[in-house]
Amino acid sequence: MPVAIENIKAAQKRIEPYVRRTDITKITLPKEGELFLKLENLQYTGAYKVRGAFNCVLQLTPEQRQAGVLAASAGNHAQGVARAARELGLNCTIVMPAGAPLSKIAATKHYGAEVILFGATYDDACRHALQLAEETGKTFIHPFDDERIICGQGTLGLEILEQCPAGQVIVPIGGGGLASGIATAIKAVDPTVRVIGVEPQNAASMSASVSAGRIITLPSANTIADGIAVKTPGELTYPLCSDILDEIVTVDEGDIANAILYLLEKGKIVSEGAGAASVAAVLSGRVQLLEDRPTVALLSGGNIDVTMISRIIDKGLIRSGRKITISTQMNDKPGQLVRLLDLISGTGANIVGVRHDRTNAQMNITESSVIVELETRDRQHIFEIRSMLEDMGYRLK
Amino acid sequence: MPVAIENIKAAQKRIEPYVRRTDITKITLPKEGELFLKLENLQYTGAYKVRGAFNCVLQLTPEQRQAGVLAASAGNHAQGVARAARELGLNCTIVMPAGAPLSKIAATKHYGAEVILFGATYDDACRHALQLAEETGKTFIHPFDDERIICGQGTLGLEILEQCPAGQVIVPIGGGGLASGIATAIKAVDPTVRVIGVEPQNAASMSASVSAGRIITLPSANTIADGIAVKTPGELTYPLCSDILDEIVTVDEGDIANAILYLLEKGKIVSEGAGAASVAAVLSGRVQLLEDRPTVALLSGGNIDVTMISRIIDKGLIRSGRKITISTQMNDKPGQLVRLLDLISGTGANIVGVRHDRTNAQMNITESSVIVELETRDRQHIFEIRSMLEDMGYRLK
Repeated sequence: MPVAIENIKAAQKRIEPYVRRTDITKITLPKEGELFLKLENLQYTGAYKVRGAFNCVLQLTPEQRQAGVLAASAGNHAQGVARAARELGLNCTIVMPAGAPLSKIAATKHYGAEVILFGATYDDACRHALQLAEETGKTFIHPFDDERIICGQGTLGLEILEQCPAGQVIVPIGGGGLASGIATAIKAVDPTVRVIGVEPQNAASMSASVSAGRIITLPSANTIADGIAVKTPGELTYPLCSDILDEIVTVDEGDIANAILYLLEKGKIVSEGAGAASVAAVLSGRVQLLEDRPTVALLSGGNIDVTMISRIIDKGLIRSGRKITISTQMNDKPGQLVRLLDLISGTGANIVGVRHDRTNAQMNITESSVIVELETRDRQHIFEIRSMLEDMGYRLK
Repeated sequence: MPVAIENIKAAQKRIEPYVRRTDITKITLPKEGELFLKLENLQYTGAYKVRGAFNCVLQLTPEQRQAGVLAASAGNHAQGVARAARELGLNCTIVMPAGAPLSKIAATKHYGAEVILFGATYDDACRHALQLAEETGKTFIHPFDDERIICGQGTLGLEILEQCPAGQVIVPIGGGGLASGIATAIKAVDPTVRVIGVEPQNAASMSASVSAGRIITLPSANTIADGIAVKTPGELTYPLCSDILDEIVTVDEGDIANAILYLLEKGKIVSEGAGAASVAAVLSGRVQLLEDRPTVALLSGGNIDVTMISRIIDKGLIRSGRKITISTQMNDKPGQLVRLLDLISGTGANIVGVRHDRTNAQMNITESSVIVELETRDRQHIFEIRSMLEDMGYRLK
């Protein structure tokens, strides 16, 4: 059953006082061309989820508002619902699985919601939330499989076309609410605009379902794009995505991590994994830019744990050859360490750390071990440094 | 000698085809209120420096253009000049001190400039560049003490007032080109708008000069806000800043690191130290928001080394009590480690790493040492965990 464009337009009007009209910016791609980014990471709560949450909560009856709302989520939906409830003066309960990141719990409490930790997984938390909804009369707000949510997220489709003459729009897919809303809106306004969905390879439940011709539940969904780690597409969203999207592509974990780092370093933009997935689709070459019209990637959110950012930076630098640790042994005579470091800096590498160990029991008594941490230009540079040291007689590990 | 507003307006027209009109966004402050951010980190090259560079290069004579340009910089000025030269088809040489970050060298080469590494400090590189300019006939582009540069950066003052009804504007000060240009522009358009300069305590050469009533050279200028680590204000910029700015405040290194982390985590924005200084002035309470009109902080650039981001994240989490490493010793009997970890997770902390060491020579043979890395809520939480463990008989280090 298609969603009516009138409902998305009504949603746009309804939520307009409560959400930010986020900007579209451009980044230069590594080879050539420019990619347009719709910055929903700068939306209130750091993600687009407030759009659907407001559109849903604003349509509750006075009695429903009085009773309050309830949701299960350890992520952006939690903050979206909590913010909508606070702004409209509703009581709000969020059920999260125990072990949810403390930063997410704190952010949700910050919006005044009561947070209940229950169960080990999202599914446990969700079952508990549904049960609580029945017991308390609060309205359960589904994260994606609800027409009000789909229409709220779909406002992004209208907004993007108002801001930019896009020829194609790339959208991450989790449960499919965002993708089906945006695709509905865009095709209604201009059917020539391509709408492409992106899933992480590790959580490609919509791709699997579309291929199978029916809703498929994955056994697991583990990805750094945790915002779209959904095992089962929705009953409303699956047929919409299947019918309307021009294409669904998948990206792997390395692609997503690369995109997060690229956005950070070149774009000066903080994106969570789900948000970066749409950019990853372009950087990995799975989606090509068009000749004549802009490609817009939806940067759906920016709520990434800062410790994850640290890890991605470290791994990214090593992968791209801009950081390396070299271990070797040398005769423990005066001047040997200086000689080694001299050789290395002669190659143009920056030495950022040195550990020198004389006490390792597995070494010959006349030897000491050195670990040198280097900043390098690229893999070729590393190859040159290693070759040079080996030619000089160093045994590298 | 004041700079004429007409020259800044002419600069705005002149550079308009070559620079981005960057957006102004808002972030919510930790306690209350909203701060407006002018996002020059999203400018081409990741910093405002292209504005001055284009305004300067566009005014060269055909002969000067033919001969090419030259600058000394290991930072944003290098990329700004290199980009302007490339776009206008000029030959460009940049002198950087040896040991300049490889990422900066690569970025500058990316814009087609020839990069010469010379000397140990910026001053050495600058002297060499001036000498080269004399030998080759290339035009030396000063990073700040040049009216064309001041007017180029001053276009930001006009742009901010066109975009936002600001009551005060906060601007980082390095050599003073940006601050004097913006202050001139803003006061010409609306003298009621306050313009506040910010310097790092460790590089407060403009504050020192204004206090002394003459140009002061600092013995050193080491700060994570490397873009504004300037030891001597300019001969043009010093009197302008001294006359026109309403106030100059200083922020310390911790304030700047906090601001970088706040922008990253809450704002989803990557800022370099200099760019974050203006935000640090507000977060640290040195500048108060106004009641009735917006405060705009100029986020001057986003070119921060990603390894620095990693370090700031780690330090920031430790400082705010969201990460802690606890070391203790315990009897090396079966079940002891599980018991310890159980006690800790009972407090709601997330255990993110455990190192267990039985071989440390300084320990009793029946003891083993454990280092547990924890994610915590805040300092109070850490205090509770430590107290509990001590009450249970653990000796903590």
